[in-house]
Amino acid sequence: MKTGRTKPLACIISAGSSKYGKRDGLYARELFAEAAYEAFDRCPNLDPQKDIDSVYVGQAYESLEHQANISPGFAASIGLQKKPTVRVESVSSSSATALRHAIFGILGGMYDTIMIGGAEKMTHRSVGEAIEIISMAADFPFEQWQGATLPGLCALIAREHMRLYGTTEEQMAKVAVKNHRNAVDNPKAQFRKEITIEEVMSSRIVADPLKLYDCSAITDGASCVIICKPEIARRYTDNFVEIIGTGEGSDAEIIMERESLTSFFSTKKASEGAYSTAKVEPKDLDFAEVHDAFTINEIIAYEDLGFCKKGEGGAMVDQGAFERDGKLPVNTSGGLKGKGHPVGASGAAQVYEAYLQLTDQAGKRQIQSPQIGLTHAMGGAGVNVVSHIFRRH
Amino acid sequence: MKTGRTKPLACIISAGSSKYGKRDGLYARELFAEAAYEAFDRCPNLDPQKDIDSVYVGQAYESLEHQANISPGFAASIGLQKKPTVRVESVSSSSATALRHAIFGILGGMYDTIMIGGAEKMTHRSVGEAIEIISMAADFPFEQWQGATLPGLCALIAREHMRLYGTTEEQMAKVAVKNHRNAVDNPKAQFRKEITIEEVMSSRIVADPLKLYDCSAITDGASCVIICKPEIARRYTDNFVEIIGTGEGSDAEIIMERESLTSFFSTKKASEGAYSTAKVEPKDLDFAEVHDAFTINEIIAYEDLGFCKKGEGGAMVDQGAFERDGKLPVNTSGGLKGKGHPVGASGAAQVYEAYLQLTDQAGKRQIQSPQIGLTHAMGGAGVNVVSHIFRRH
Repeated sequence: MKTGRTKPLACIISAGSSKYGKRDGLYARELFAEAAYEAFDRCPNLDPQKDIDSVYVGQAYESLEHQANISPGFAASIGLQKKPTVRVESVSSSSATALRHAIFGILGGMYDTIMIGGAEKMTHRSVGEAIEIISMAADFPFEQWQGATLPGLCALIAREHMRLYGTTEEQMAKVAVKNHRNAVDNPKAQFRKEITIEEVMSSRIVADPLKLYDCSAITDGASCVIICKPEIARRYTDNFVEIIGTGEGSDAEIIMERESLTSFFSTKKASEGAYSTAKVEPKDLDFAEVHDAFTINEIIAYEDLGFCKKGEGGAMVDQGAFERDGKLPVNTSGGLKGKGHPVGASGAAQVYEAYLQLTDQAGKRQIQSPQIGLTHAMGGAGVNVVSHIFRRH
Repeated sequence: MKTGRTKPLACIISAGSSKYGKRDGLYARELFAEAAYEAFDRCPNLDPQKDIDSVYVGQAYESLEHQANISPGFAASIGLQKKPTVRVESVSSSSATALRHAIFGILGGMYDTIMIGGAEKMTHRSVGEAIEIISMAADFPFEQWQGATLPGLCALIAREHMRLYGTTEEQMAKVAVKNHRNAVDNPKAQFRKEITIEEVMSSRIVADPLKLYDCSAITDGASCVIICKPEIARRYTDNFVEIIGTGEGSDAEIIMERESLTSFFSTKKASEGAYSTAKVEPKDLDFAEVHDAFTINEIIAYEDLGFCKKGEGGAMVDQGAFERDGKLPVNTSGGLKGKGHPVGASGAAQVYEAYLQLTDQAGKRQIQSPQIGLTHAMGGAGVNVVSHIFRRH
């Protein structure tokens, strides 16, 4: 162990994920069930009906399936329709926020064992419909109404980062190349195909300077984790993971109201909370899963999470610091870029990867005996961030 | 005190509400701010910036304002954009579910003081748009797709209750008459006008046997409460309310999958949880705010909450048991029927009423020195219910 043994807040006893990609003919609840049954299979000592006290769901856009109040339907898809449920929504960080509140439920003594799942069914919508729906993550009166989309807002952020710190389009491209390379070894990933810097650079412009391969895709998918209070984890399995840190940060939804375009207060505050509850520092981490809906987001995350100094994210990419065999592997799962980004699922997907890595179940993308990992999920363009820290038990 | 002093889970130190009704030219966040500033005004010792640790938001339909991830915007509307926030969604019980999870946050030791708000802006939509959006509360593949709307589903439930127990349309009408009468004395209510049984009976049919006046309306509005851990309540005010019970129940979203059409497992389970944590029984209650989106819902709530035996709800209405001067006043606020039903706000609105009644601030509708009250918020047609019990301190 690299640190003194902070008491865990909760333990992850299992996790699951659907295949990500274009999943025709399925509802989000069916994708959720696919993820849940993998989690049940991994943990045969768990009797879901008897042991799971509540189902927490992260799901972003009720418009996609014309379905509000989706959490009871998710629970019903796995036979738990009589259990209390809750849907939490903070767009891309929805299921990470759900995990945070599930931890509160355990710490508060209300529940012993909780299923947390995220799911989104998106690809049945036309690209135009999907863009209109996804744009709801931006502020309506001050951003959407002016024509700003998420790629547009992140392009502004990228331009400013380039201006201030000399970050280059090639450095952003390298983030995409790295994450796609990692996704090749993730059987659940949407894109299992390596790409080159040249392919990224020559892909069509979405919002200058962001090109197609700088942007995550429209994806169907679901991921889940099952947590319990630390005292009872061994009842279910010896192969569990400890959650030792949780933090959350929020900032003005409207980017023009922020103090900085290129550093997110939300990430800083969330990681500060996670590091301080876990009593670890960035140098203690063995891997991280960070929000990379757009490649610039990942570079800014390196900086705001303390993996490098402000403005040095791009240079660190050039050095290969965040490759799977680098100083600190980032997005070994393939990230939102390579694995796919079913919005409400992405927070849980990061935790799924952390669980696999810390229990040596990550297959071909397994890193060597990691002890501590961090997840970083972001709603909107730096609006609200939830970060968790996990430890091998 | 009617009961032994169960330790409170949390305390309500203030509450506020916007005016309900048609509020042209305002966003939900502005309605939320209107409610929040009333709460701040009631509690001058509270410094929101310093004291409020998090903002929990209940909001049902992101489509209404084309705005997802709404909680940071709500927080920003009252200057708290740097505070962690969460949006919870369970349609009509959204902000009651938010309160339940805020209580978990306090019990878990994560936060000391939390603002919980609910808001919905609806009337800017055409009736057709509003109905289409509200219908998202029903199950898409098995209900919406077959043409079932919420009034339609509740009409089926009403018919079955009439068949099994002899409940009459007049008895349902009397619920509407009572709640409108109560709303006359609520300055925040949408409808401050008495109606007669004849007016209800002759109003146009929405979904037989439910008529226009059996149904709650489309409303703009917001309500909020501020809670804190019990140990620090006196720091802010002497006039606080104790939350002593919380419970939640859920059932199959699809009504055809239920064991009963006329009794809601969700309500029974939620109230069981609330009664048992609070260590009180129905006979100990001095008032209740229950879900009455349709009049039949209120009659079924009497039965499922243990205010009377199964099937006797209608007869109890004839006896006037739930009038403001009856055995157990129900919906002194006017209920969703008279006060209005801005979906995501309604759970918090019930708690606002409980706070006013238990601190003798309910003005002309104040009941005499109530000690204990219950709230009952329901998502969908009996899908998920959250119930809380409050005590005068």
